[in-house]
Amino acid sequence: MRLCFVGDSMVNGTGDPAYLGWVGRVLQDERTRREELTGYNLGIRRDRSDQIRARWRAEVEARLPAEVEGRVVFSFGSNDAVQEIALSATLEHARALLSEARVRWPVFMVGVVPLPDEQVRTRIKALDETLETLFVSLDVPYLSVFDHLMETSIWLDEARAGDRAHPGVGGYARLAAFILASESWRRWMAAGLRSAA
Amino acid sequence: MRLCFVGDSMVNGTGDPAYLGWVGRVLQDERTRREELTGYNLGIRRDRSDQIRARWRAEVEARLPAEVEGRVVFSFGSNDAVQEIALSATLEHARALLSEARVRWPVFMVGVVPLPDEQVRTRIKALDETLETLFVSLDVPYLSVFDHLMETSIWLDEARAGDRAHPGVGGYARLAAFILASESWRRWMAAGLRSAA
Repeated sequence: MRLCFVGDSMVNGTGDPAYLGWVGRVLQDERTRREELTGYNLGIRRDRSDQIRARWRAEVEARLPAEVEGRVVFSFGSNDAVQEIALSATLEHARALLSEARVRWPVFMVGVVPLPDEQVRTRIKALDETLETLFVSLDVPYLSVFDHLMETSIWLDEARAGDRAHPGVGGYARLAAFILASESWRRWMAAGLRSAA
Repeated sequence: MRLCFVGDSMVNGTGDPAYLGWVGRVLQDERTRREELTGYNLGIRRDRSDQIRARWRAEVEARLPAEVEGRVVFSFGSNDAVQEIALSATLEHARALLSEARVRWPVFMVGVVPLPDEQVRTRIKALDETLETLFVSLDVPYLSVFDHLMETSIWLDEARAGDRAHPGVGGYARLAAFILASESWRRWMAAGLRSAA
């Protein structure tokens, strides 16, 4: 199986001195349950939903040829919140890319992650809820991670101690563990390949 | 600094259960000497030089905005050798992408890595030497790694024990250590940002 992870700096794992991020940790763990698993990390720092909409298709197509079992995981939104993009605009970009992606590959979305700035975080929380509604309406699994990352102070503490945006080993490990333990992720990984439309 | 690593499955780190490959290990080590270092792994399984020539620019441009210090590391060639692409064709693709890349970003090339199949490996050795000549003529650092990886049996033993192409932790760690210890890599990383043409 080949998994593409498309999104922003949190997907890239920016700030993690181990250069794994949550993506690398999820791959390590999933690999223990299968012979072969290739990961492509397509997270780009500062990327907003409109930028991801513009590039995801060409980058994913180059990595997931028709003859291999390919899947796509998205995660984005915090840069839209930082740059005060209208919620309706983010929603439109998400809807457009999702409508295209879901007929080609099984798609999973990891929700928007919190940032230290309180005003930004309030917008992130609203965006996360709105995106979840959209994904559910399109029958695509959406795993909201915001509340879990706010339950302890690890994520924000590491972000404040670092570049004021990205966590370190502890935060990324916590996010990976939450994804791996979630029922929606386990079900999505276990499901057979959806046939292309 | 932001580094893009563009190439094939060996750049992706395919076969490494730690999901680091040589790229992740080089980044981990380089990070110990600087505050900030972002890595973008743009290795794609089965990619030949013509495919890399077709996609590298859009993918790198999306990741290295003009205002950040960006650099590009290439590594490819073994899929050209496997698929018996004419040496002159590989050379033409390499020359074309390199001519474009070197005027925009500092460029470094990690040479072609060996594969278990003897006939393929003979073609890889010839390709590695030809590519090195090209890069030297264009004044771009080229680090041949073929002989070093053949000095011990780790690389090929792991490849044979795995999917018959890719090494595991030992091979990738050996390659990363060789790159990090090489004079050409150290000089390239230490050099100031080349001004854009």
